Amino acid sequence: MNLDVDLSPLREFLEAEELDGYLIDDDASDSDQRYVSGFTAPDPYQTLVTREGVHLLVSGLEYGRASAEANVDSVTRRAAYDYQQLVAEYGRYEGKIRMLAAFLEDHDVDSIAVPRNFPTGTADGLREHDFAVTVEREGTVTEIRATKTEWEVDQIRASQRANEAAMARAEELIATADVEDGVLVHDGDVLTSERVTEEIEVTLLRHGCALDETIVASGADGADPHDRGSGPLEPDELIVIDIFPRDKETGYFADMTRTFARGDPGEEARRRYEVTREAYEAALETVEAGVTGADVHGAACDVIEDAGYETLRSDPNTETGFIHSTGHGVGLDIHEEPSVSPSGGELEAGHVISIEPGIYDPAVGGVRIEDLIAVTEDGYENLTEYRIGLEPTAGDR
Amino acid sequence: MNLDVDLSPLREFLEAEELDGYLIDDDASDSDQRYVSGFTAPDPYQTLVTREGVHLLVSGLEYGRASAEANVDSVTRRAAYDYQQLVAEYGRYEGKIRMLAAFLEDHDVDSIAVPRNFPTGTADGLREHDFAVTVEREGTVTEIRATKTEWEVDQIRASQRANEAAMARAEELIATADVEDGVLVHDGDVLTSERVTEEIEVTLLRHGCALDETIVASGADGADPHDRGSGPLEPDELIVIDIFPRDKETGYFADMTRTFARGDPGEEARRRYEVTREAYEAALETVEAGVTGADVHGAACDVIEDAGYETLRSDPNTETGFIHSTGHGVGLDIHEEPSVSPSGGELEAGHVISIEPGIYDPAVGGVRIEDLIAVTEDGYENLTEYRIGLEPTAGDR
Repeated sequence: MNLDVDLSPLREFLEAEELDGYLIDDDASDSDQRYVSGFTAPDPYQTLVTREGVHLLVSGLEYGRASAEANVDSVTRRAAYDYQQLVAEYGRYEGKIRMLAAFLEDHDVDSIAVPRNFPTGTADGLREHDFAVTVEREGTVTEIRATKTEWEVDQIRASQRANEAAMARAEELIATADVEDGVLVHDGDVLTSERVTEEIEVTLLRHGCALDETIVASGADGADPHDRGSGPLEPDELIVIDIFPRDKETGYFADMTRTFARGDPGEEARRRYEVTREAYEAALETVEAGVTGADVHGAACDVIEDAGYETLRSDPNTETGFIHSTGHGVGLDIHEEPSVSPSGGELEAGHVISIEPGIYDPAVGGVRIEDLIAVTEDGYENLTEYRIGLEPTAGDR
Repeated sequence: MNLDVDLSPLREFLEAEELDGYLIDDDASDSDQRYVSGFTAPDPYQTLVTREGVHLLVSGLEYGRASAEANVDSVTRRAAYDYQQLVAEYGRYEGKIRMLAAFLEDHDVDSIAVPRNFPTGTADGLREHDFAVTVEREGTVTEIRATKTEWEVDQIRASQRANEAAMARAEELIATADVEDGVLVHDGDVLTSERVTEEIEVTLLRHGCALDETIVASGADGADPHDRGSGPLEPDELIVIDIFPRDKETGYFADMTRTFARGDPGEEARRRYEVTREAYEAALETVEAGVTGADVHGAACDVIEDAGYETLRSDPNTETGFIHSTGHGVGLDIHEEPSVSPSGGELEAGHVISIEPGIYDPAVGGVRIEDLIAVTEDGYENLTEYRIGLEPTAGDR
């Protein structure tokens, strides 16, 4: 468990605003709550950060596990505030509000800050019971989460190991496929994006990871960074594979992209691959604590523009060239702080970011190369152990 | 796509409260938004229901797909309200509020209802711009979602087909395992809960479904309905398998539970299995439009109490016997309306519910039998095609 959570910036905020506590009312899909409480449950629960401690309110079914697992100072059952009776008397909505009011009073809290995504139903209900509810607009917890503890970097590294196994399986399928009638064929069946995606997902499952989406996009599909890809894979075409799995136990994501081509995708495609690789290396070399995400993004743009391709910096309306930002933070969410983009602020040691420049054009296809790295005081540590190369090989990462 | 969405109860609410519109501001994890808009995207988007139409606000990256796929009257890009410029000038928080204010004004909306889980940050921000924001406390959209269209029942049936394939795979593993030194052994390896779970998940993936959790719990683990199970499976023990997959494309869930035992779990376990089966049949026979969920739950309790076991009705504090409710609605969420419990209201044709009585005791293990059914005017349609039997068999569903 992540025992080194430092909530002092949140407590400084509470002190400055003269508020008694910070309340989260959500389910486990809320990574801020998972981070602050060290707990996750299928049903909604509440986490209260006061100036002194962290307090959890859970259902009776979760009480035992929360007491054993959560990284908090106290765990209370809903029944302690007669939740069922309150619901019977006041209905589900007002019953919940009255339970929360009793929980807050129990911890001497009259005024709370809440995250931007805090439920309006709960906020307005508590206001009717004379609690002061203020929205914390800066996203302080999200900001804290951007800097990973050593334990967190280890979890992300473990997810990236699973990711590498999945990428190797995908690369192997493409490398060992036969070419028949202008499509790739594997074990007698046409090799499709869907088939490769399924093998990636099965490999990840066998490594304890899950994912909602994977990108295996070839040809023009690969030139749209949001296209997941579909249909038969063809020789002499660029194939973009972007995998972002989440460990089912720890909740930490990983992220990696490779671009392959069976046969010869043509001189222009090969040139774009080399330019993307140079942009990736230039961005990596720029990373260290103290530089900004904008600086890193700029280094990638420099290389791509110098090679004669558009970027959103050279033409904000371009639909070809480098049409996204260079990277993003990765942790309990797949996209989190910090941003490696024109608006990216200062990088700090402990930030974990993707570096993923690309060049796109429906007429040529897409190229993207992405590694996951940890920012250090004097540079970076690459959390990815996977070779970079356009030609797919089997069994050689 | 679900083209028969009937939002008239929501519009009646707007009319009664003299409000101009209903606004959802969330991501695709919000099933209400997915249902109302017929759209899902990785990033947050907004859906506005006015008295006349349904309007979507999306990022430029999603605009093409939303225009093609969403079940709405209009789709607008954020750029139409100069979102990037607003963020540059006012910051991310206030920039978003100003974009939403322009979107609402564009549709002549001054006053809105919002769901209970609407972000407080957005609600308070809009209030500062003089919009009236009222929380819709009854969960009207969730209520509408409880009654499925024919198309929706078809999607749930399809998810249950995948579920049956996964259950068959699990049953086959247990049926064909050898017994060595007091544990089940398959292909030379000890057959564990984790191994069976992995095979279930891989089978579901190959059928286009995903899931977060599966229950394969034997012995005392199976007596705790929330325990996912772990460790070696043993002969002569009850094994509860509960699978609730979600189709990755449509988003609709299925749900099914079977209980198996290799060898002889003992007379008491066999008796509990038969009583559970009778309770399941009694509950099923009670189902038809017009009866309440409480009636159906009562029918299951009658059988279990008559056989001499406790229920939460006979003893609200019991920790053994029938310690949960008989069922719940299933659709875009795994737990949704209606409830088949002591507080369950009237069932309507088109409701899709689980029927899942069980009897639990750590000393004996757990038994649960669950099918998924659609309520009809004069009874029910069972959406599950899977035999019920304690003894596992291979290849015979």
